[in-house]
Amino acid sequence: MTANEMAEALVFHEAEKPFTIEKVSLPTPQVNEVLVKIAYTTICTSDLHTYYGRRTSPCPSILGHEIIGHVVSLGKAINTDYNGEALKVGNLVTWSVYAHDVHGTMAKKGFPQKSHNLFKYGHQQMALDKPLSGGFATHCLLREGTAIFNLSDRLIPKELAPLNCTHATIAGAIRLAGDLNNKNVLIAGVGMLGLSACAMAKESGAKNVYAMDCDKARLNFAKTFGVNQIIQASLEVQDIVEQLKPHHEIDVVIDTTGAPEAMEKSLSLLSIGGMAVWVGAVFSQRNTQVNAEMIVRNLLTIKGLHNYKPKDLAVAITFLEKNHKKYPFASLVNKEFLLHELESAFNEAHKGGHYRVGIRQDPS
Amino acid sequence: MTANEMAEALVFHEAEKPFTIEKVSLPTPQVNEVLVKIAYTTICTSDLHTYYGRRTSPCPSILGHEIIGHVVSLGKAINTDYNGEALKVGNLVTWSVYAHDVHGTMAKKGFPQKSHNLFKYGHQQMALDKPLSGGFATHCLLREGTAIFNLSDRLIPKELAPLNCTHATIAGAIRLAGDLNNKNVLIAGVGMLGLSACAMAKESGAKNVYAMDCDKARLNFAKTFGVNQIIQASLEVQDIVEQLKPHHEIDVVIDTTGAPEAMEKSLSLLSIGGMAVWVGAVFSQRNTQVNAEMIVRNLLTIKGLHNYKPKDLAVAITFLEKNHKKYPFASLVNKEFLLHELESAFNEAHKGGHYRVGIRQDPS
Repeated sequence: MTANEMAEALVFHEAEKPFTIEKVSLPTPQVNEVLVKIAYTTICTSDLHTYYGRRTSPCPSILGHEIIGHVVSLGKAINTDYNGEALKVGNLVTWSVYAHDVHGTMAKKGFPQKSHNLFKYGHQQMALDKPLSGGFATHCLLREGTAIFNLSDRLIPKELAPLNCTHATIAGAIRLAGDLNNKNVLIAGVGMLGLSACAMAKESGAKNVYAMDCDKARLNFAKTFGVNQIIQASLEVQDIVEQLKPHHEIDVVIDTTGAPEAMEKSLSLLSIGGMAVWVGAVFSQRNTQVNAEMIVRNLLTIKGLHNYKPKDLAVAITFLEKNHKKYPFASLVNKEFLLHELESAFNEAHKGGHYRVGIRQDPS
Repeated sequence: MTANEMAEALVFHEAEKPFTIEKVSLPTPQVNEVLVKIAYTTICTSDLHTYYGRRTSPCPSILGHEIIGHVVSLGKAINTDYNGEALKVGNLVTWSVYAHDVHGTMAKKGFPQKSHNLFKYGHQQMALDKPLSGGFATHCLLREGTAIFNLSDRLIPKELAPLNCTHATIAGAIRLAGDLNNKNVLIAGVGMLGLSACAMAKESGAKNVYAMDCDKARLNFAKTFGVNQIIQASLEVQDIVEQLKPHHEIDVVIDTTGAPEAMEKSLSLLSIGGMAVWVGAVFSQRNTQVNAEMIVRNLLTIKGLHNYKPKDLAVAITFLEKNHKKYPFASLVNKEFLLHELESAFNEAHKGGHYRVGIRQDPS
């Protein structure tokens, strides 16, 4: 690579309007920055929300945040990754979906993902001085306060790209759920997040993993991710209880649907002392109807999680490295496009039927 | 006391109907039982709920569960209290509001208060073989699986009687809330439970204790229980936020009201990573409207607590022994009656204006 090489970005301007191709000079990383050549990006559901106008996002921007790439150059202060391993030019890496002030109040309070002036990759307006901030480009500039992790090249890009969003979020949810050993765990919703949750709950020692969803095909597929029993979400609570017998003792629910109906139903399924971790409700919706007397008398807990902590991403990476052959993670990206085919990729993803659509960089 | 001495009980038969006075032979405690001569009982709000027909309870029964008394005789297997201190005839004691199977599944799971076949003092139908099971009597028979605690006679009965319900429940709530050091804590509702919560939160290291209630007089009184700032519950969330500035960062809410309006409002007041502990919602009510997106994005937690664990009662006793002079706990029982005046006592308590009405045993 020469100093004059240019990066290329597919820029988002307005819902459902064509991306524009823009050339950007390759930046020289500042002292705490790292420049990465992107290898693979997966289209996350939140990218679809933005592109199809279901939520507003600052423009122009480079979308895409489920990214992996190779280190091109490092700022002077950076020579190790988050785990303290050597970080060198050419290393394959992923990184936290946000850059944050590691010395700020929120990080000190234990909520780095809610730091003031949080910078979220793939969600920000392109900055004049540092425009390379998303995954649908050839390069990305990792800013100060980004947790960077070396990746093993024994895994393939399709497996690795969703790490820093899907799997790290689920690792955070599992952290909140506490010790799952010998517990019965219900995963509500078996899209990308839910499948990750099924496998991670199983590997965390869950006695039984139950999956609940409206979609029969998805439920059946979930069986390949460690699920012991599937539950049709359309059933009434009493019918579900009947189905679960004699095991019926749901200790933990992880809700990835964000659907009030599902959150209401799964709260009713929890046994004494049970816990619900909500991660799916990241969109505007009607209020969830909570029977407070049930919460009190049954000693229930509800915990909300948004984004995750850097150490959750570390846990997710370890999990995936250990289990990528045990569960069919690679099959979750079943359609691939090149960067300049991004619009077709979004249209394909929008059609549905895919857990993830992938964007690879080289026509190899 | 002679072997032929009889116990006397005021027996509840039907809502708002006269208690009957019944004589009962004094039992000889079985191997794991303890016979206690009751010294003082306070009328808890749940006693009022039962007597005034707001909830159904098995009859006939001896109501009253906030009790202290002196040990009359002990079963052969009992010679220490829950803390391992010598338990002897004549000792002043309190005990868990329930007897439970200490080796049962629920106790092993960490939820002794939800054990199968839980026996709750003051709430059970009088058993033919062991009728002395409530506080509105001269004696109470403590069954196997009751956590018994010696009490210091430096404290007066008025201070001690509410320990095993009010203060122990709040100790449980504070346990769920976790480390309160330097936190801002909002107590919703400043009845008996709420006042206990204000003082215990303060003594647990809270930076600021805020009290929210509809009743101005109660709010003002709460200032004597460690409250830094009072909040009129009728105010809108935005107005409350304005009032709290510049301190506004509510880390923990303890809800003792059980009112959906209050639970909804206090959830909206929580800062990032905040926690609500619900203890008041022990009655039938409309659903609480929960904005799940807020729970998720703000990383909030909701925990329900019902009853408490024996160790919570231990904590409550230590707390009260240390702080009974610092906060006016004795003043919370501002009206006393004798046992045979129980109906008048209930009528007085029902009128309102009292935190607790006390029943003392001897016309001293």
